[in-house]
Amino acid sequence: MVAGQRKVLAVVEPASDFGQIDRRALIAAAVGLSLAPGVALSAQPDAVPQIQVGMLVHPDMVLLDLVGPQTVMSLAMAQVHLVGKTRAPVSTDVGVAIAPTTTFVDAPKDFDVLFVPGGLKGSIECMKDPEVMAFMADRGSRARYVTSVCTGSLVLGAAGLLKGYDATSHWYVRDLLATMGARPKHGRVVTDRNRITAGGVTAGIDFGLTLAAALRGEDFAKKIQLTLEYSPEPPFRAGTPEEAGPAMTGDVLARRAPLIAAAREAAEAAARRA
Amino acid sequence: MVAGQRKVLAVVEPASDFGQIDRRALIAAAVGLSLAPGVALSAQPDAVPQIQVGMLVHPDMVLLDLVGPQTVMSLAMAQVHLVGKTRAPVSTDVGVAIAPTTTFVDAPKDFDVLFVPGGLKGSIECMKDPEVMAFMADRGSRARYVTSVCTGSLVLGAAGLLKGYDATSHWYVRDLLATMGARPKHGRVVTDRNRITAGGVTAGIDFGLTLAAALRGEDFAKKIQLTLEYSPEPPFRAGTPEEAGPAMTGDVLARRAPLIAAAREAAEAAARRA
Repeated sequence: MVAGQRKVLAVVEPASDFGQIDRRALIAAAVGLSLAPGVALSAQPDAVPQIQVGMLVHPDMVLLDLVGPQTVMSLAMAQVHLVGKTRAPVSTDVGVAIAPTTTFVDAPKDFDVLFVPGGLKGSIECMKDPEVMAFMADRGSRARYVTSVCTGSLVLGAAGLLKGYDATSHWYVRDLLATMGARPKHGRVVTDRNRITAGGVTAGIDFGLTLAAALRGEDFAKKIQLTLEYSPEPPFRAGTPEEAGPAMTGDVLARRAPLIAAAREAAEAAARRA
Repeated sequence: MVAGQRKVLAVVEPASDFGQIDRRALIAAAVGLSLAPGVALSAQPDAVPQIQVGMLVHPDMVLLDLVGPQTVMSLAMAQVHLVGKTRAPVSTDVGVAIAPTTTFVDAPKDFDVLFVPGGLKGSIECMKDPEVMAFMADRGSRARYVTSVCTGSLVLGAAGLLKGYDATSHWYVRDLLATMGARPKHGRVVTDRNRITAGGVTAGIDFGLTLAAALRGEDFAKKIQLTLEYSPEPPFRAGTPEEAGPAMTGDVLARRAPLIAAAREAAEAAARRA
């Protein structure tokens, strides 16, 4: 399947006012914009190339890791598939269960974007699960973009998808990427060829806009940013270890030590499998 | 019920690794911090004052409006109630349905925090719904903090909860607050006495941290910020009308004109009721 052949009417699903209005609003902007290489642009005013996004959903994931990018991709008129091992709703950090829309068996064979959200405990379980690893390695081998937010990059790494790539993760496990053959980099959103990995949790919004610009062009991404009123003003400067200082950072790290140790073991096991 | 009397063990619910670890991690930080006035601090090392947060969930809401504040409040060890008109899952802009955890009938009578997410279409329906209005007016009359993100402030305004208060909303409907007796203010997070309203969608994270500091103290809020790695780096400067410029702003506004007109009608109707 070639991306350029997948053209559908832009309004592809029943959507809320927010999504639907935006989809309509952005059609005109999309047509005529320069899109990513390989995506032919239809001359039909009501058609834009469809973008297939596969988002892994896993038990214990951090919901905000998912919803930031999902919101941006929805406004970018992508078709988002929430891919679960089964159709059973998965738990999240905030206690809200999320129902997958498809499964490893039923998911599209080819995604434009493969994405993994984080959540350390859930990511570790994914790293140890042969079914998850096989699915990620397969879809990741053909996706136009292979992406993650937060500790989701540990899942990509364990599936062998970051070998020889610059990549990042949540600050407290970033160094573990090296164990699996990646080059860990500081950076809120790190792009190396078609791998785009982002830092912890809230980096998903910066990531989403970066990806939207790659898929739909910069003007389109800016309209999404305006729609989401993304002009952040954090009330404090404490979002990185450098900003928070060693005492606060050490405290957060110490209290996560058991999970970080488990992630290190899972990374080492993955490296031995490779 | 007095807030200071509501003390429970901090780990109040089965939570994911992310939430649970954070709850445990933050207990020590919470104990000994200066909390909001009126919240007595227990001498028990394992106990922190429980915070009851009621979040209205309504059909067509913008999921990110909810999940940003919900994530921060979860890390602040609050007990979050997703309050629906019924227990039927409500639709959201990204196509994910969210199940309320309680209803108008069954919800706690007193909340420390009453919160409304936005989504323009859903907010308009709330403004016109006598049951929603009655619930909001009742709980809002006693909540320690009455809060919103995005167009959720239109719902507060329609329920008469912003009369004589500074408030903000998503930039494209902010001026409608004046119709309902509020003083519309520019500002990502606007605090006036116990009303805290925030701008569009992504402002929910800034709002959440501001609220967490009010409830748990600034050090606690900073640890949450570090955990969420909230050190934003938007790839573009287009998150406000001022940043995006008149052409892009006009385009987004024009395409939302029917919904904004409907919101104006609902605001005028609410003003006539008052």
